[in-house]
Amino acid sequence: MLTLYYSPGSCALASHIALEEAGADYKTIRLDFAQNDQRAPGYLAINPKGRVPALVTEQGILTESPAILVYIAQRFPQARLAPLADPFAFARLQSFNSYLCSTVHVAHAHRMRGYRWADDPAALAEMKRKVPQTVGEAFQLIERHMIAGPWVLGESFSVCDGYLFTMAQWLKDDGVDIAALPRIHDHHNRMLERPAVKKVLADERRALAA
Amino acid sequence: MLTLYYSPGSCALASHIALEEAGADYKTIRLDFAQNDQRAPGYLAINPKGRVPALVTEQGILTESPAILVYIAQRFPQARLAPLADPFAFARLQSFNSYLCSTVHVAHAHRMRGYRWADDPAALAEMKRKVPQTVGEAFQLIERHMIAGPWVLGESFSVCDGYLFTMAQWLKDDGVDIAALPRIHDHHNRMLERPAVKKVLADERRALAA
Repeated sequence: MLTLYYSPGSCALASHIALEEAGADYKTIRLDFAQNDQRAPGYLAINPKGRVPALVTEQGILTESPAILVYIAQRFPQARLAPLADPFAFARLQSFNSYLCSTVHVAHAHRMRGYRWADDPAALAEMKRKVPQTVGEAFQLIERHMIAGPWVLGESFSVCDGYLFTMAQWLKDDGVDIAALPRIHDHHNRMLERPAVKKVLADERRALAA
Repeated sequence: MLTLYYSPGSCALASHIALEEAGADYKTIRLDFAQNDQRAPGYLAINPKGRVPALVTEQGILTESPAILVYIAQRFPQARLAPLADPFAFARLQSFNSYLCSTVHVAHAHRMRGYRWADDPAALAEMKRKVPQTVGEAFQLIERHMIAGPWVLGESFSVCDGYLFTMAQWLKDDGVDIAALPRIHDHHNRMLERPAVKKVLADERRALAA
Protein backbone atom coordinates (compact mmCIF):
# COMPACT_ATOMS: atom_id res chain seq x y z
CA MET A 1 0.00 0.00 0.00
CA LEU A 2 1.32 3.42 -0.98
CA THR A 3 0.28 6.65 0.73
CA LEU A 4 0.39 9.99 -1.06
CA TYR A 5 0.45 13.23 0.89
CA TYR A 6 -1.02 15.98 -1.27
CA SER A 7 -2.79 19.30 -1.34
CA PRO A 8 -5.61 19.77 -3.85
CA GLY A 9 -4.53 21.75 -6.90
CA SER A 10 -0.81 21.44 -6.10
CA CYS A 11 1.78 19.69 -8.24
CA ALA A 12 1.01 16.52 -6.25
CA LEU A 13 -1.89 16.10 -8.69
CA ALA A 14 0.61 14.64 -11.18
CA SER A 15 1.58 11.85 -8.77
CA HIS A 16 -2.07 11.31 -7.84
CA ILE A 17 -2.98 10.84 -11.51
CA ALA A 18 0.00 8.51 -12.05
CA LEU A 19 -1.07 6.29 -9.13
CA GLU A 20 -4.59 6.07 -10.52
CA GLU A 21 -3.43 5.43 -14.09
CA ALA A 22 -1.11 2.71 -12.77
CA GLY A 23 -3.96 0.91 -11.02
CA ALA A 24 -1.98 1.15 -7.79
CA ASP A 25 -3.31 0.19 -4.36
CA TYR A 26 -2.92 3.55 -2.62
CA LYS A 27 -4.51 5.99 -0.26
CA THR A 28 -4.19 9.76 -0.02
CA ILE A 29 -3.79 12.13 2.91
CA ARG A 30 -4.74 15.71 2.27
CA LEU A 31 -2.72 18.57 3.75
CA ASP A 32 -4.53 21.86 4.23
CA PHE A 33 -2.08 24.56 3.20
CA ALA A 34 -4.44 27.23 4.59
CA GLN A 35 -3.90 25.63 8.02
CA ASN A 36 -0.15 25.34 7.33
CA ASP A 37 -0.35 21.55 7.72
CA GLN A 38 2.81 21.24 5.64
CA ARG A 39 4.84 22.99 8.36
CA ALA A 40 3.43 20.92 11.25
CA PRO A 41 6.09 18.87 13.11
CA GLY A 42 4.36 15.59 12.22
CA TYR A 43 4.58 16.31 8.53
CA LEU A 44 8.10 17.75 8.70
CA ALA A 45 9.17 14.37 10.11
CA ILE A 46 7.82 12.83 6.89
CA ASN A 47 9.14 15.52 4.56
CA PRO A 48 11.56 18.05 6.11
CA LYS A 49 11.09 20.26 3.03
CA GLY A 50 7.52 21.00 4.12
CA ARG A 51 6.19 20.45 0.63
CA VAL A 52 4.04 18.04 -1.32
CA PRO A 53 4.02 15.47 -2.79
CA ALA A 54 5.45 12.85 -0.46
CA LEU A 55 4.93 9.18 -1.20
CA VAL A 56 5.22 6.70 1.66
CA THR A 57 6.38 3.30 0.43
CA GLU A 58 7.26 0.07 2.27
CA GLN A 59 10.95 0.99 1.86
CA GLY A 60 10.81 4.64 2.88
CA ILE A 61 9.51 8.04 1.86
CA LEU A 62 10.01 9.66 -1.53
CA THR A 63 9.69 13.33 -2.40
CA GLU A 64 9.98 15.41 -5.62
CA SER A 65 7.50 14.86 -8.44
CA PRO A 66 9.96 13.68 -11.14
CA ALA A 67 11.30 10.99 -8.77
CA ILE A 68 7.86 9.84 -7.64
CA LEU A 69 6.48 9.74 -11.19
CA VAL A 70 9.26 7.48 -12.47
CA TYR A 71 9.07 5.32 -9.33
CA ILE A 72 5.38 4.71 -10.02
CA ALA A 73 6.14 3.89 -13.67
CA GLN A 74 8.86 1.42 -12.61
CA ARG A 75 6.80 -0.17 -9.86
CA PHE A 76 3.81 -0.76 -12.14
CA PRO A 77 5.47 -1.61 -15.46
CA GLN A 78 2.32 -3.24 -16.84
CA ALA A 79 0.72 0.24 -16.92
CA ARG A 80 3.39 1.35 -19.45
CA LEU A 81 3.70 4.86 -18.05
CA ALA A 82 7.33 5.31 -19.19
CA PRO A 83 9.61 3.90 -21.93
CA LEU A 84 11.68 2.02 -19.36
CA ALA A 85 13.58 -0.22 -21.78
CA ASP A 86 14.95 2.57 -23.99
CA PRO A 87 17.51 4.85 -22.28
CA PHE A 88 17.21 7.63 -24.87
CA ALA A 89 13.41 7.69 -24.83
CA PHE A 90 13.52 7.52 -21.05
CA ALA A 91 15.90 10.50 -21.01
CA ARG A 92 13.42 12.47 -23.12
CA LEU A 93 10.76 11.77 -20.52
CA GLN A 94 13.13 12.83 -17.77
CA SER A 95 14.08 16.00 -19.63
CA PHE A 96 10.43 16.96 -19.99
CA ASN A 97 9.69 16.38 -16.31
CA SER A 98 12.82 18.27 -15.29
CA TYR A 99 11.79 21.28 -17.36
CA LEU A 100 8.40 21.27 -15.66
CA CYS A 101 9.82 21.12 -12.13
CA SER A 102 12.77 23.49 -12.54
CA THR A 103 11.40 26.08 -14.99
CA VAL A 104 7.61 25.92 -15.35
CA HIS A 105 6.72 25.25 -11.72
CA VAL A 106 9.29 27.83 -10.58
CA ALA A 107 7.92 30.49 -12.94
CA HIS A 108 4.43 29.80 -11.61
CA ALA A 109 5.56 29.89 -7.97
CA HIS A 110 6.62 33.53 -8.33
CA ARG A 111 2.94 34.49 -8.36
CA MET A 112 1.95 33.32 -4.87
CA ARG A 113 5.20 32.13 -3.28
CA GLY A 114 7.63 34.88 -4.19
CA TYR A 115 8.49 35.07 -0.47
CA ARG A 116 10.76 32.10 -1.11
CA TRP A 117 13.17 34.42 -2.92
CA ALA A 118 12.47 37.95 -1.60
CA ASP A 119 10.87 39.70 1.39
CA ASP A 120 10.15 43.25 0.21
CA PRO A 121 6.45 43.59 -0.79
CA ALA A 122 7.37 45.68 -3.83
CA ALA A 123 9.66 42.90 -5.09
CA LEU A 124 6.92 40.32 -4.54
CA ALA A 125 4.50 42.46 -6.53
CA GLU A 126 7.06 42.86 -9.31
CA MET A 127 7.61 39.07 -9.49
CA LYS A 128 3.87 38.53 -9.62
CA ARG A 129 3.54 41.04 -12.44
CA LYS A 130 5.94 39.11 -14.65
CA VAL A 131 4.32 35.67 -14.17
CA PRO A 132 2.03 35.80 -17.23
CA GLN A 133 5.10 36.49 -19.38
CA THR A 134 7.43 33.86 -17.88
CA VAL A 135 4.81 31.11 -17.64
CA GLY A 136 3.53 32.04 -21.10
CA GLU A 137 7.02 31.81 -22.64
CA ALA A 138 7.68 28.44 -21.00
CA PHE A 139 4.41 27.04 -22.30
CA GLN A 140 5.11 28.45 -25.78
CA LEU A 141 8.37 26.51 -25.76
CA ILE A 142 6.49 23.35 -24.78
CA GLU A 143 3.88 24.03 -27.45
CA ARG A 144 6.46 24.51 -30.21
CA HIS A 145 9.20 22.04 -29.27
CA MET A 146 8.24 19.56 -26.60
CA ILE A 147 4.92 17.84 -27.40
CA ALA A 148 5.32 15.02 -29.91
CA GLY A 149 1.53 14.48 -30.03
CA PRO A 150 -1.01 13.24 -29.39
CA TRP A 151 0.65 12.68 -25.99
CA VAL A 152 3.79 14.41 -24.77
CA LEU A 153 6.09 11.58 -25.87
CA GLY A 154 4.08 10.61 -28.95
CA GLU A 155 1.67 7.70 -29.34
CA SER A 156 2.19 6.40 -25.81
CA PHE A 157 0.65 8.00 -22.76
CA SER A 158 3.20 8.54 -19.97
CA VAL A 159 3.68 10.17 -16.59
CA CYS A 160 4.65 13.35 -18.47
CA ASP A 161 1.03 13.81 -19.51
CA GLY A 162 -0.40 14.07 -16.01
CA TYR A 163 2.44 16.39 -15.04
CA LEU A 164 1.82 18.72 -17.99
CA PHE A 165 -1.92 18.59 -17.29
CA THR A 166 -1.27 19.63 -13.68
CA MET A 167 0.67 22.74 -14.66
CA ALA A 168 -1.77 23.61 -17.44
CA GLN A 169 -4.48 23.67 -14.74
CA TRP A 170 -2.67 26.72 -13.32
CA LEU A 171 -2.56 28.70 -16.58
CA LYS A 172 -5.75 30.67 -16.07
CA ASP A 173 -4.74 31.98 -12.64
CA ASP A 174 -1.25 32.66 -14.01
CA GLY A 175 -2.78 34.98 -16.61
CA VAL A 176 -2.04 32.79 -19.65
CA ASP A 177 -4.76 31.98 -22.19
CA ILE A 178 -4.66 28.26 -22.95
CA ALA A 179 -6.61 28.89 -26.17
CA ALA A 180 -3.44 30.53 -27.55
CA LEU A 181 -1.66 27.18 -27.05
CA PRO A 182 -3.63 24.87 -29.35
CA ARG A 183 -1.63 21.68 -28.83
CA ILE A 184 -1.58 22.10 -25.05
CA HIS A 185 -5.27 23.01 -25.09
CA ASP A 186 -6.10 19.89 -27.09
CA HIS A 187 -3.92 17.78 -24.79
CA HIS A 188 -5.70 19.24 -21.77
CA ASN A 189 -9.13 18.44 -23.15
CA ARG A 190 -8.12 14.85 -23.94
CA MET A 191 -6.71 14.44 -20.43
CA LEU A 192 -10.07 15.55 -19.00
CA GLU A 193 -11.72 12.62 -20.81
CA ARG A 194 -9.54 9.94 -19.18
CA PRO A 195 -11.37 7.97 -16.47
CA ALA A 196 -8.35 8.11 -14.10
CA VAL A 197 -8.12 11.90 -14.41
CA LYS A 198 -11.88 12.30 -13.86
CA LYS A 199 -11.71 10.14 -10.74
CA VAL A 200 -8.70 11.95 -9.26
CA LEU A 201 -10.17 15.41 -9.89
CA ALA A 202 -13.46 14.31 -8.28
CA ASP A 203 -11.57 12.90 -5.27
CA GLU A 204 -9.60 16.13 -4.79
CA ARG A 205 -12.75 18.25 -5.12
CA ARG A 206 -14.51 16.04 -2.58
CA ALA A 207 -11.58 16.40 -0.16
CA LEU A 208 -11.68 20.19 -0.56
CA ALA A 209 -15.42 20.30 0.16
CA ALA A 210 -15.20 18.02 3.21
CA MET B 1 30.79 9.80 -29.67
CA LEU B 2 28.88 12.15 -27.40
CA THR B 3 29.22 15.94 -27.50
CA LEU B 4 28.56 18.10 -24.47
CA TYR B 5 27.81 21.81 -24.84
CA TYR B 6 28.81 23.57 -21.66
CA SER B 7 29.92 26.83 -20.11
CA PRO B 8 32.71 26.73 -17.51
CA GLY B 9 31.39 26.97 -13.96
CA SER B 10 27.78 26.34 -14.98
CA CYS B 11 25.65 23.38 -13.91
CA ALA B 12 26.94 21.56 -17.02
CA LEU B 13 29.96 20.71 -14.87
CA ALA B 14 27.90 17.87 -13.35
CA SER B 15 27.38 16.25 -16.76
CA HIS B 16 31.02 16.86 -17.67
CA ILE B 17 32.16 15.05 -14.52
CA ALA B 18 29.70 12.20 -15.15
CA LEU B 19 31.04 11.68 -18.69
CA GLU B 20 34.60 11.56 -17.38
CA GLU B 21 33.73 9.26 -14.47
CA ALA B 22 31.92 6.97 -16.92
CA GLY B 23 34.98 6.68 -19.15
CA ALA B 24 32.85 7.87 -22.06
CA ASP B 25 34.18 8.73 -25.49
CA TYR B 26 33.10 12.37 -25.66
CA LYS B 27 34.09 15.86 -26.69
CA THR B 28 33.05 19.23 -25.29
CA ILE B 29 32.08 22.48 -26.95
CA ARG B 30 32.37 25.56 -24.82
CA LEU B 31 29.77 28.33 -25.02
CA ASP B 32 30.91 31.80 -23.98
CA PHE B 33 28.02 33.29 -22.01
CA ALA B 34 29.78 36.69 -22.02
CA GLN B 35 29.41 36.63 -25.82
CA ASN B 36 25.82 35.38 -25.47
CA ASP B 37 26.71 32.22 -27.44
CA GLN B 38 23.77 30.46 -25.82
CA ARG B 39 21.31 32.79 -27.62
CA ALA B 40 22.96 32.44 -31.06
CA PRO B 41 20.68 30.93 -33.72
CA GLY B 42 23.04 27.99 -34.24
CA TYR B 43 22.84 27.00 -30.62
CA LEU B 44 19.11 27.68 -30.31
CA ALA B 45 18.64 25.08 -33.06
CA ILE B 46 20.40 22.61 -30.75
CA ASN B 47 18.68 23.75 -27.55
CA PRO B 48 15.77 26.17 -27.98
CA LYS B 49 15.93 26.91 -24.25
CA GLY B 50 19.26 28.72 -24.78
CA ARG B 51 20.81 27.00 -21.77
CA VAL B 52 23.46 24.43 -20.96
CA PRO B 53 24.03 21.54 -20.72
CA ALA B 54 23.02 19.95 -24.00
CA LEU B 55 24.26 16.48 -24.88
CA VAL B 56 24.33 15.44 -28.52
CA THR B 57 23.87 11.69 -28.92
CA GLU B 58 23.55 9.46 -31.98
CA GLN B 59 19.78 9.40 -31.38
CA GLY B 60 19.19 13.07 -30.74
CA ILE B 61 19.85 15.91 -28.32
CA LEU B 62 19.20 15.79 -24.59
CA THR B 63 18.86 18.74 -22.21
CA GLU B 64 18.33 19.16 -18.44
CA SER B 65 20.98 17.92 -16.02
CA PRO B 66 18.91 15.27 -14.19
CA ALA B 67 17.99 13.65 -17.52
CA ILE B 68 21.55 13.75 -18.89
CA LEU B 69 23.07 12.41 -15.67
CA VAL B 70 20.83 9.35 -15.59
CA TYR B 71 21.29 8.81 -19.34
CA ILE B 72 25.06 8.68 -18.82
CA ALA B 73 24.61 6.25 -15.91
CA GLN B 74 22.38 4.01 -18.03
CA ARG B 75 24.58 4.17 -21.11
CA PHE B 76 27.73 3.23 -19.18
CA PRO B 77 26.39 0.76 -16.62
CA GLN B 78 29.85 -0.69 -15.94
CA ALA B 79 30.76 2.66 -14.31
CA ARG B 80 28.03 2.07 -11.67
CA LEU B 81 27.00 5.71 -11.45
CA ALA B 82 23.41 4.94 -10.36
CA PRO B 83 21.56 2.09 -8.59
CA LEU B 84 19.78 1.13 -11.81
CA ALA B 85 18.44 -2.24 -10.65
CA ASP B 86 16.67 -0.98 -7.51
CA PRO B 87 13.65 1.27 -8.20
CA PHE B 88 13.52 2.69 -4.67
CA ALA B 89 17.25 3.48 -4.50
CA PHE B 90 17.01 4.93 -8.00
CA ALA B 91 14.10 7.13 -6.87
CA ARG B 92 16.24 8.44 -4.02
CA LEU B 93 18.89 9.42 -6.55
CA GLN B 94 16.23 11.09 -8.68
CA SER B 95 14.79 12.92 -5.69
CA PHE B 96 18.19 14.31 -4.82
CA ASN B 97 18.87 15.50 -8.37
CA SER B 98 15.41 17.00 -8.61
CA TYR B 99 15.93 19.00 -5.41
CA LEU B 100 19.19 20.36 -6.80
CA CYS B 101 17.67 21.45 -10.11
CA SER B 102 14.35 22.82 -8.86
CA THR B 103 15.30 24.31 -5.49
CA VAL B 104 19.07 24.75 -5.07
CA HIS B 105 19.91 25.87 -8.60
CA VAL B 106 16.86 28.14 -8.64
CA ALA B 107 17.79 29.76 -5.31
CA HIS B 108 21.30 30.38 -6.66
CA ALA B 109 20.01 31.80 -9.95
CA HIS B 110 18.29 34.66 -8.12
CA ARG B 111 21.72 36.20 -7.53
CA MET B 112 22.77 36.83 -11.15
CA ARG B 113 19.74 35.83 -13.21
CA GLY B 114 16.88 37.43 -11.32
CA TYR B 115 15.84 39.01 -14.64
CA ARG B 116 14.21 35.69 -15.44
CA TRP B 117 11.47 36.51 -12.92
CA ALA B 118 11.43 40.33 -12.58
CA ASP B 119 12.52 43.46 -14.47
CA ASP B 120 12.62 46.22 -11.86
CA PRO B 121 16.23 46.81 -10.66
CA ALA B 122 15.07 47.19 -7.04
CA ALA B 123 13.41 43.77 -7.20
CA LEU B 124 16.56 42.23 -8.68
CA ALA B 125 18.61 43.73 -5.86
CA GLU B 126 16.15 42.41 -3.29
CA MET B 127 16.33 38.89 -4.77
CA LYS B 128 20.11 39.05 -4.72
CA ARG B 129 20.08 40.14 -1.07
CA LYS B 130 18.17 37.03 -0.01
CA VAL B 131 20.39 34.51 -1.84
CA PRO B 132 22.74 33.75 1.08
CA GLN B 133 19.70 32.86 3.18
CA THR B 134 17.85 30.73 0.60
CA VAL B 135 20.92 28.89 -0.67
CA GLY B 136 22.15 28.49 2.91
CA GLU B 137 18.84 26.95 4.04
CA ALA B 138 18.76 24.56 1.10
CA PHE B 139 22.30 23.38 1.84
CA GLN B 140 21.49 23.02 5.56
CA LEU B 141 18.66 20.69 4.55
CA ILE B 142 21.06 18.66 2.40
CA GLU B 143 23.60 18.63 5.23
CA ARG B 144 21.09 17.39 7.79
CA HIS B 145 18.84 15.08 5.79
CA MET B 146 20.14 14.21 2.36
CA ILE B 147 23.75 12.96 2.48
CA ALA B 148 24.00 9.33 3.54
CA GLY B 149 27.81 9.53 3.59
CA PRO B 150 30.51 9.20 2.59
CA TRP B 151 28.85 9.82 -0.79
CA VAL B 152 25.39 11.27 -1.30
CA LEU B 153 23.73 7.86 -1.61
CA GLY B 154 26.02 6.07 0.84
CA GLU B 155 28.94 3.79 0.06
CA SER B 156 28.53 4.06 -3.70
CA PHE B 157 29.61 7.07 -5.70
CA SER B 158 26.88 8.23 -8.12
CA VAL B 159 25.97 11.03 -10.50
CA CYS B 160 24.49 12.85 -7.48
CA ASP B 161 28.01 13.51 -6.18
CA GLY B 162 29.19 15.50 -9.18
CA TYR B 163 25.92 17.41 -9.20
CA LEU B 164 26.22 18.34 -5.51
CA PHE B 165 29.89 19.24 -6.02
CA THR B 166 28.90 21.57 -8.88
CA MET B 167 26.46 23.54 -6.75
CA ALA B 168 28.80 23.60 -3.76
CA GLN B 169 31.32 25.31 -6.07
CA TRP B 170 28.91 28.27 -6.11
CA LEU B 171 28.57 28.61 -2.33
CA LYS B 172 31.30 31.18 -1.81
CA ASP B 173 29.91 33.60 -4.41
CA ASP B 174 26.43 32.96 -3.03
CA GLY B 175 27.59 34.19 0.37
CA VAL B 176 27.42 30.83 2.15
CA ASP B 177 30.34 29.54 4.22
CA ILE B 178 30.98 25.90 3.32
CA ALA B 179 32.92 25.48 6.58
CA ALA B 180 29.56 25.73 8.39
CA LEU B 181 28.43 22.65 6.44
CA PRO B 182 30.89 19.99 7.62
CA ARG B 183 29.52 17.00 5.71
CA ILE B 184 29.24 18.98 2.47
CA HIS B 185 32.68 20.46 3.05
CA ASP B 186 34.17 17.01 3.57
CA HIS B 187 32.33 15.72 0.49
CA HIS B 188 33.66 18.64 -1.55
CA ASN B 189 37.25 17.98 -0.50
CA ARG B 190 36.99 14.29 -1.36
CA MET B 191 35.53 15.14 -4.75
CA LEU B 192 38.55 17.37 -5.44
CA GLU B 193 40.79 14.31 -4.99
CA ARG B 194 39.09 12.24 -7.68
CA PRO B 195 41.12 11.99 -10.90
CA ALA B 196 38.05 12.55 -13.10
CA VAL B 197 37.13 15.72 -11.22
CA LYS B 198 40.69 17.03 -11.40
CA LYS B 199 40.81 16.42 -15.14
CA VAL B 200 37.45 18.08 -15.83
CA LEU B 201 38.27 21.15 -13.72
CA ALA B 202 41.62 21.49 -15.51
CA ASP B 203 39.90 21.16 -18.91
CA GLU B 204 37.35 23.84 -18.04
CA ARG B 205 40.06 26.18 -16.72
CA ARG B 206 42.10 25.64 -19.89
CA ALA B 207 39.04 26.44 -22.05
CA LEU B 208 38.45 29.62 -20.06
CA ALA B 209 42.07 30.75 -20.50
CA ALA B 210 42.15 29.98 -24.23
